[in-house]
Amino acid sequence: MITLASDFGTPYPAAMKGAILRQCDARLVDVGHDFPRQNVRAAAFWLARVLPEFPPAVHLVVVDPGVGTDRAALVVRAGEHLLVGPDNGVLLPPARELADGTAGIETYELAAENPRSSTFHGRDVFAPGAATVHGTDPDRLAELDGLSPTDGVVDLRFPEPELTESGVIGEVLVVDGFGNVVTNVPGSTLGNRSVVRVDGDATPVVPSYAHAEAGDRVVTVGSHGNVELAVNRGRGDEAFDVGVGDAVRLGFG
Amino acid sequence: MITLASDFGTPYPAAMKGAILRQCDARLVDVGHDFPRQNVRAAAFWLARVLPEFPPAVHLVVVDPGVGTDRAALVVRAGEHLLVGPDNGVLLPPARELADGTAGIETYELAAENPRSSTFHGRDVFAPGAATVHGTDPDRLAELDGLSPTDGVVDLRFPEPELTESGVIGEVLVVDGFGNVVTNVPGSTLGNRSVVRVDGDATPVVPSYAHAEAGDRVVTVGSHGNVELAVNRGRGDEAFDVGVGDAVRLGFG
Amino acid sequence: MITLASDFGTPYPAAMKGAILRQCDARLVDVGHDFPRQNVRAAAFWLARVLPEFPPAVHLVVVDPGVGTDRAALVVRAGEHLLVGPDNGVLLPPARELADGTAGIETYELAAENPRSSTFHGRDVFAPGAATVHGTDPDRLAELDGLSPTDGVVDLRFPEPELTESGVIGEVLVVDGFGNVVTNVPGSTLGNRSVVRVDGDATPVVPSYAHAEAGDRVVTVGSHGNVELAVNRGRGDEAFDVGVGDAVRLGFG
Repeated sequence: MITLASDFGTPYPAAMKGAILRQCDARLVDVGHDFPRQNVRAAAFWLARVLPEFPPAVHLVVVDPGVGTDRAALVVRAGEHLLVGPDNGVLLPPARELADGTAGIETYELAAENPRSSTFHGRDVFAPGAATVHGTDPDRLAELDGLSPTDGVVDLRFPEPELTESGVIGEVLVVDGFGNVVTNVPGSTLGNRSVVRVDGDATPVVPSYAHAEAGDRVVTVGSHGNVELAVNRGRGDEAFDVGVGDAVRLGFG
Repeated sequence: MITLASDFGTPYPAAMKGAILRQCDARLVDVGHDFPRQNVRAAAFWLARVLPEFPPAVHLVVVDPGVGTDRAALVVRAGEHLLVGPDNGVLLPPARELADGTAGIETYELAAENPRSSTFHGRDVFAPGAATVHGTDPDRLAELDGLSPTDGVVDLRFPEPELTESGVIGEVLVVDGFGNVVTNVPGSTLGNRSVVRVDGDATPVVPSYAHAEAGDRVVTVGSHGNVELAVNRGRGDEAFDVGVGDAVRLGFG
Repeated sequence: MITLASDFGTPYPAAMKGAILRQCDARLVDVGHDFPRQNVRAAAFWLARVLPEFPPAVHLVVVDPGVGTDRAALVVRAGEHLLVGPDNGVLLPPARELADGTAGIETYELAAENPRSSTFHGRDVFAPGAATVHGTDPDRLAELDGLSPTDGVVDLRFPEPELTESGVIGEVLVVDGFGNVVTNVPGSTLGNRSVVRVDGDATPVVPSYAHAEAGDRVVTVGSHGNVELAVNRGRGDEAFDVGVGDAVRLGFG
């Protein structure tokens, strides 16, 4: 099984699928191709949440604003999973979730000499790389032509929320398609509180969106385990007037 | 075969796919994940038209504005098809189309105790449920752990058009991506008329969009069998200035 | 394998998938269903670039503004590939790329008598046609019921760029989802130049987007081999203020 994730829209993902299917007949599963454009952090966040749902697989991840520069191409082993994509940090957060501890992570550079294009390594480097490692025993990756162990890959860490005397200052990591605002604050931070202040305004904490009236602003813990700002049957990003990267002050006092 | 339909956009559907593939290796077919958000009726309408095209399958349907409340999770048998989703009415109109008569419909409640999250039952309740019933003889559903026959499920009926002395008053059920306005008026209502009045304006009835000049407003019978208001190479919703839920008066006099 | 491409959005492609799967159990691969609406030329351009990535397959292509008129339904053989879709030119540019020379192209009319609808031949004519030719030896297409050799199909050619004394006048063929402006000018036309004038303004020629500062306008050669106008981490269509069909003057002097 090879899963595919990118910020490509249409029709570039199909070129990757064709390139894979010329090499092998792996089952292909689309994770999504409309991740926020060239937003490495948003893709890393979502993939860290979604890829662990899958059984062992090869995960092709192409969010690659540095395509055509000298950034390396990587294969990352994470337990029984393999990730293939650019060396810009996007693979590491999902790898940490997929691996049985950091000990389960190994990083390999994927040779990419003279690709057909310098603007579409998804098709010309990463898809062929995914097809190559598909079906390979993860313990024998180092024996494959074109793969060489490497250290010093680019990492990516999400910012930590800042605890204050009366609450926590978090940051908006992503906004989903419903407008739900996902922060970096772990859900456990809320304890059993039924109300918190969001940037000063008392806001109910609910187990899910529909526990409020339509249009009401709520705080909840999303399926990813983080604190979300949301509106039942509405858009949290608009109601709270926040976007990716903005600070969110949660007050417990 | 398991088909998947939701209003999730990206990347939540991938989490459902992963959850299914951890349990079984069913063929997965996306019906669509950009159904109008939290619009149970629109999803029910489209699925009633689209799912009958498929051979017998399990259909996972998650348009679920009540996620996390005490609304039940359902498995609905409809002839040789099974539908899995929330008890909010979305499954019944497609079930009626899929079943060989109402006698072919059986409803089961799917146990959902202590799901991992209270905001993402698509991943935590319905996808595992679809994987569980996949491959089961529909005649032996009642023997599965976690499934119990139930009555009194939430139903959903589309409004009936109102016949008047000089025509019919219909309602806009959905607008498709082309801007075609789909009403609740059966195509047969038009008889052999070549012109009808739409909210008073004489409008040609054509067999398909391209039987009019580009930009012309037309009435036609869509592939779903209902009366559509459309514009050749344009958007009917804009030209007729109507949206979902609006009344449409068709005059035959 | 059957690939599917359309301008249908959701949920019409699922009806085509269902119709195919009722007839055969071919592997289905989505090429994309959000091609620019009713834009035959844009679809033909992209498919000519993307379909050659695939191993031999049946390619179902439905961008069909003339649905319901008397335009024919076609099966086009292109080497070991088959294309199925409307006779409006959309199949020919990809067929030329897929065939081993024009000698590899054969055209057949697909009988479409009394289809279920006059507005959705994707479901009622083309999908069943694709399922019918799937698995057939391409050398024996003429033996299939419902297929008859035909000439005189509608062709589609992309405009040629015009060479001038000091450069070339091209045309914008498509704009991709990143806003990259794809012209009809072959990349080889640029030679080894490091700067060209775009509508008079000196603009650097770079091997890929990230060889410029974020926000800078650049000229590059896309993965399709044509000259692109782009902006690193921005939208070329907005920065250069051009859209599909517009002329682009590249000056070499």
